[in-house]
Amino acid sequence: MHAVDLIRKKRDGKRLSRQELEFLITGYVQGDIPDYQMAAWSMAVYFQGMEPEEITDLTLIMAQSGDTLDLSGVHGVKIDKHSTGGVGDTTTLVVAPLVASCGIPVAKMSGRGLGHTGGTIDKLESIPGFQVSLEPEEFIAQVNAIGLCLVGQTGQLAPADKLLYALRDVTGTVESIPLIASSIMSKKIAAGADGFVLDVKVGTGAFMKTEEDALELAKTMVKIGQLAGRTTVALVTDMNQPLGRAVGNALEVKEAILTLQGRGPERLTELCLELAVEMLLMAGGSSSQSEARRSVEANLQSGAALQKLRELIEAQGGEGRVVDSPHLLPQAKFTKEILAPQSGYVETLDPMEIGMAAMNLGAGRESKDTIIDLAVGIELQTEIGEQVMEKQVLAKLYANDEHKLEQAAEQTLRAFTFSSAKPTVQPTIYRKITAQEL
Amino acid sequence: MHAVDLIRKKRDGKRLSRQELEFLITGYVQGDIPDYQMAAWSMAVYFQGMEPEEITDLTLIMAQSGDTLDLSGVHGVKIDKHSTGGVGDTTTLVVAPLVASCGIPVAKMSGRGLGHTGGTIDKLESIPGFQVSLEPEEFIAQVNAIGLCLVGQTGQLAPADKLLYALRDVTGTVESIPLIASSIMSKKIAAGADGFVLDVKVGTGAFMKTEEDALELAKTMVKIGQLAGRTTVALVTDMNQPLGRAVGNALEVKEAILTLQGRGPERLTELCLELAVEMLLMAGGSSSQSEARRSVEANLQSGAALQKLRELIEAQGGEGRVVDSPHLLPQAKFTKEILAPQSGYVETLDPMEIGMAAMNLGAGRESKDTIIDLAVGIELQTEIGEQVMEKQVLAKLYANDEHKLEQAAEQTLRAFTFSSAKPTVQPTIYRKITAQEL
Repeated sequence: MHAVDLIRKKRDGKRLSRQELEFLITGYVQGDIPDYQMAAWSMAVYFQGMEPEEITDLTLIMAQSGDTLDLSGVHGVKIDKHSTGGVGDTTTLVVAPLVASCGIPVAKMSGRGLGHTGGTIDKLESIPGFQVSLEPEEFIAQVNAIGLCLVGQTGQLAPADKLLYALRDVTGTVESIPLIASSIMSKKIAAGADGFVLDVKVGTGAFMKTEEDALELAKTMVKIGQLAGRTTVALVTDMNQPLGRAVGNALEVKEAILTLQGRGPERLTELCLELAVEMLLMAGGSSSQSEARRSVEANLQSGAALQKLRELIEAQGGEGRVVDSPHLLPQAKFTKEILAPQSGYVETLDPMEIGMAAMNLGAGRESKDTIIDLAVGIELQTEIGEQVMEKQVLAKLYANDEHKLEQAAEQTLRAFTFSSAKPTVQPTIYRKITAQEL
Repeated sequence: MHAVDLIRKKRDGKRLSRQELEFLITGYVQGDIPDYQMAAWSMAVYFQGMEPEEITDLTLIMAQSGDTLDLSGVHGVKIDKHSTGGVGDTTTLVVAPLVASCGIPVAKMSGRGLGHTGGTIDKLESIPGFQVSLEPEEFIAQVNAIGLCLVGQTGQLAPADKLLYALRDVTGTVESIPLIASSIMSKKIAAGADGFVLDVKVGTGAFMKTEEDALELAKTMVKIGQLAGRTTVALVTDMNQPLGRAVGNALEVKEAILTLQGRGPERLTELCLELAVEMLLMAGGSSSQSEARRSVEANLQSGAALQKLRELIEAQGGEGRVVDSPHLLPQAKFTKEILAPQSGYVETLDPMEIGMAAMNLGAGRESKDTIIDLAVGIELQTEIGEQVMEKQVLAKLYANDEHKLEQAAEQTLRAFTFSSAKPTVQPTIYRKITAQEL
């Protein structure tokens, strides 16, 4: 088998077999197939696409290219959730304890933020003392003890994906749905869960800018799940404005706590409830959508979900009192309020500008090596479709650097446009994709 | 400027500017831009193509990436010819002396054979004593002295093309007309001539398999010539059977001598005359097609062209008597006649099989490092459309290894099919493309 023949085959629009993909990917990881051949293959995939079985083969080969997590020691059905990344997207910090409080084990690995998007592991690190690195045995023992554990990625999970993604990043081949879908699903499958609830963001602040692309990505991942024998459901959700109102690590933890207290912003709360419902249904913890919805709402109202967050924090060495006293989280030195320059309806609230403003304040990473500031960020005081008066506070900025504060203030204001008529507001959840609907 | 942005721009079907291409190509030659980015860019070009001005920019940048030959010391208009490569394609050995005998200087660099195609420089080396390496000053002095010089590529001609071609070869991106056209034209332009007569082969033994592709390549190269200020004409010619009847180095020299004696095979003779006519017209050596035709036919018949070949050989240290006594060329130890297995018309005579059989006899190179045997090869005794009787000799094989001879005999026979009705014979020359016709 020669790599150049496989590149030509894909270039000519033909499907590669499992053996051929294995030859390419394994050869690449072992250093036998050079970057330039994988780059040409990736560009050929960009133009020619891949068939569902082919994408699934690629996904499973990448999933098996390194360590895989064995969750068989965890009692019960393990459901993982994944978001394609957004701004003010604090869902994991709410959904994980909520689902665990309903008796469904959550053994989850999460990532860090990059660019305008945040990451769960960074947010958790803003809780004093919280340890995100656990040995696999500790991880499993904790899930069996309290039903919940959230850790950073350990070991060499899907190294083939890591290599290939880094190459795609510098060769203009990131924007390929088969490659995006297999990248996400390979890491999820390597992380060992039985089923997946996927949150595919769409909009100006998301990787997928159009509903068409988001739907295609969602369907592709659900299909991979189906072909790989993992129940998978995807929600296609709005990212034309930040999901929650807090953007920044400690600020998002505080917002997650508020949400678990039943006082969170409506859109974030709604999506968290629906993600939790899907996880409950998939794990067999509820027999119907309405029963699952009642369970998660009840555990939010009773404080059981918040209590589970406290247990999680304490089990991983953190300061559990933050759930009662969020001021124990890191605090920024400077704040600034952004005022409405005019009266009107909030017409747009660009999540990309908000995400970049938060990043520039220090809340996010410009590159993988950036050291982030856990205390800083933005708290929005309004959202699309709300009426505001001139000089009303649109957002509150938190910073540890006055110069950055001024710059981020301007950028935050640029995220807003206003209209005299009430604009159409996108729903939080556009569509649900299940294997049955493919 | 970032290479990844240029890859994405091309991927999205946009034209790269001269500055952008310069950044890519110069960066690549200097080692600042890695193979994997050029591989991704090449695959993007494969799918998206390039605009004529863009191809011309690329061509000129590659032409200027290394040494360029300064032919200003040669008196007169210098016209180069180039063939895209075929089997039994001995045109340069006939056309160069023929044109020179008409008073038009020919200062030509030629290449070596690879795979099933031959190369002029290998053929010349079968003439005892012939030197293919000359210093630039010797080269120019010889052209001014006798009007003709044929040498191998010297110096670092278009190193960017060399690098890029080697990369395309292993990344499935060879078959891109803009990249093929710019590769050929960059080397031609670096070699310093004022105008080019191109012979674009089409058919089973050519790189271009369809007339459509050959026409597109021809038009693209003529357009590059026009935009780069070099008069360029292309003939699209048949390669559905070997052009001449000899395939192999010394055998082709012998056939060139026969052709210069007016006794060559018809198709080879016809193409040589037409290529010479185009060169004469382009150099201003004739005022009309018919006058040019009369000149070249006269010089063939008078022996002036053959005499010019003798002068060339002697000027470059070779044994001039070969033009009278071709048996002075290297002779093979073994011969074998291939007999017709049936009576009928020769329906096909696959030049690829013939070229590969000759290569397997040792006449050609499987890889760049192969040492070739100048004496061996194949002499066809028939061509498509001719009627043969059972047991009639179809071809004579020359070898220095009996085992190879047997294998090549079988392969040679596979090149033939026969039919009971007279098949349609392709014309030797399909089309002529000039800048006016684009």
